[in-house]
Amino acid sequence: MGGLSGVAVIAHGGGPTAVVNASLAGVIEESRRHPEITALYGARHGISGIIGNSFLDLSRYPASLVDAVANVPASALGSCRCTVTDDDIDRALHNFEALDVRYCFYNGGNGSMNTAWRLERGARERGFDLRVIGIPKTIDNDLARTDHSPGFGSAARFFAYAARDLGEENRSLPPPVTVLEVLGRNAGWLVAATALARHREDDAPHLIYCPERRLTAAKLLADVEAVYRRLGRCLVAVCEGQLDDRGEAFGADPVSVDAYGRPLSGNLGHVLARLITRELKIRARSEKPGLLGRSCEAFVSAVDREEARLCGRAAVEAAIRCETGKMITLERLPGPGYRVRTGLADLESVWTSEQLLPPEWISACGSGVTAAIHEYAAPLAGEISPHPRLD
Amino acid sequence: MGGLSGVAVIAHGGGPTAVVNASLAGVIEESRRHPEITALYGARHGISGIIGNSFLDLSRYPASLVDAVANVPASALGSCRCTVTDDDIDRALHNFEALDVRYCFYNGGNGSMNTAWRLERGARERGFDLRVIGIPKTIDNDLARTDHSPGFGSAARFFAYAARDLGEENRSLPPPVTVLEVLGRNAGWLVAATALARHREDDAPHLIYCPERRLTAAKLLADVEAVYRRLGRCLVAVCEGQLDDRGEAFGADPVSVDAYGRPLSGNLGHVLARLITRELKIRARSEKPGLLGRSCEAFVSAVDREEARLCGRAAVEAAIRCETGKMITLERLPGPGYRVRTGLADLESVWTSEQLLPPEWISACGSGVTAAIHEYAAPLAGEISPHPRLD
Repeated sequence: MGGLSGVAVIAHGGGPTAVVNASLAGVIEESRRHPEITALYGARHGISGIIGNSFLDLSRYPASLVDAVANVPASALGSCRCTVTDDDIDRALHNFEALDVRYCFYNGGNGSMNTAWRLERGARERGFDLRVIGIPKTIDNDLARTDHSPGFGSAARFFAYAARDLGEENRSLPPPVTVLEVLGRNAGWLVAATALARHREDDAPHLIYCPERRLTAAKLLADVEAVYRRLGRCLVAVCEGQLDDRGEAFGADPVSVDAYGRPLSGNLGHVLARLITRELKIRARSEKPGLLGRSCEAFVSAVDREEARLCGRAAVEAAIRCETGKMITLERLPGPGYRVRTGLADLESVWTSEQLLPPEWISACGSGVTAAIHEYAAPLAGEISPHPRLD
Repeated sequence: MGGLSGVAVIAHGGGPTAVVNASLAGVIEESRRHPEITALYGARHGISGIIGNSFLDLSRYPASLVDAVANVPASALGSCRCTVTDDDIDRALHNFEALDVRYCFYNGGNGSMNTAWRLERGARERGFDLRVIGIPKTIDNDLARTDHSPGFGSAARFFAYAARDLGEENRSLPPPVTVLEVLGRNAGWLVAATALARHREDDAPHLIYCPERRLTAAKLLADVEAVYRRLGRCLVAVCEGQLDDRGEAFGADPVSVDAYGRPLSGNLGHVLARLITRELKIRARSEKPGLLGRSCEAFVSAVDREEARLCGRAAVEAAIRCETGKMITLERLPGPGYRVRTGLADLESVWTSEQLLPPEWISACGSGVTAAIHEYAAPLAGEISPHPRLD
């Protein structure tokens, strides 16, 4: 089987996650088991490193360092977020041919799966025998064709604990309203998963808004006022990508835009807290943990890390089995208990769509989520323990 | 010894910390050892609960629940931040007399030590035998007469890890500049302690600004540009209370003010990131973990928690030994190794001053701190491990 002999390259694309290095470790350890892979190079900063011939020789690191790196967030190789031109693809393939690269593992989100797909197609067109396998990675959990993506569980764990801890802080001491801004861009998976923090009827978050549904200022204010009247406090979880009824971001003010023209680091939570303070005369503050939600070692979910490593290993195994043009997926097996196995999906079927939160998981009133998110996300994020109280 | 028999009250004042409940547990467990203390009541929301006769009977909780609560952030009793009038003090003492309260433990910062001092003075003036002991608590570390305060070590641990993890995130992927906004109001202890994250010469944070020294926009921009030219990236740690050369907050926009008229939840980091993006044409983003820095269970420092509990126990012991009008202090003993013992300071000497970062701990250039902060804060925050890298 296999038999294609040559160098392998692993690259990271897009925003790092808390477990992207675990997938890297999976690729490294599995590559070492297959003599067909004569060397493993890590591209520095994704496609930029491939184009610029900037690689780390991953053969030279001892297993102990690989294990240490597997346990920490951020991308040990460096990543990139850039528009990839057809010329870039040509240059990358040219470099691959010169280096005798025969295996390419691309670990990222939708943009990266598009790059991987173009590399595979380009190689095929020029008759160059290259096997390209994508490895899923996104905290937003918006990759299609997979039950979920590595990175999501740890980010969900971070934000659920943030909601819990800020909720108890909020119960201790006014101001009575806190707006927690959650990562996720257009996808509500992460903000929905803050519901994992709820154990008691009055636990935070009290209001959860998913960006799949637009939100008017009037509704937000009425919701906050109703919770405040009932509990004397309110923790609102809102996604950074939430839009108002005109399809705009509530006047939030991005610092700048990224290479795709998407807003970077706006201040939606701040704007909503000001709106609540001004209109309801109820003091509010905002919290925006921001990139800590994807880079915080303390909240790595054990299941997420293990699955990230599994996906890395599965990518190498698939390539050795002659697969190409595919992304590794995670398939949830029927219960009892949570079990997954890896599968494969065509790269083109992944990058051409975006997996949003199912509309029926948003509660009818639009201010919360149904129990479905709990069943889905709890095994991935791990247990969010209740905050003990004296009362 | 002692012999004064009656009820004890424990109250929390000001912002919760990650270990304020450990001090509560110390008071509960030590009170149970002294038959002079006939019952222990916890005031709901500090002085408000004392005035409004809103108490929890802390005698009824099993040790296992007390231990569980000792391990979680936020205030299990509830806290308050309010202006205390002389009438409030009279009402509080009236309630204490009616309930036969003879011991009062007040756990908080400067404002709480003022309240405690006034309760003690008021009781003395009316010939009511009441023993009042303050227990230090502040993440800002601005209480005078003590080497440091419980709460600081855990918050320092949170922000040092935030600087480390965001620094590695930043090394993985542009935008090249991140502004990390750190708690601390007027005191630079916490922002200075982010230096604990530095192990390698290029580790974050690259620039640290302490609010004890004013900062011009021109200096900030020149500093960021210099680091960016050297490393291609820059993580700036800035305190929420940082002022510009006119003594203003860089145009940051507070959502509202607290009961003392102090700004709540501004957006300094966001404003500085915009300034850097606009003036230097280097893309920047901001991170403001906010209250997570004092409420995040995952970053509790073991030493901080143990010392918080020790201070709670020491308060009860001191009162039983007939002390009153004092705050428990932590005294650092001469080395080798880190050791502390508790001491006592007059309440009046505490609340009348504010302990700021020693000016000589700020580096001459004004963009960093000296090694003194490391020696001081490392034992309190615990080890901040280096982030393993492949390179």
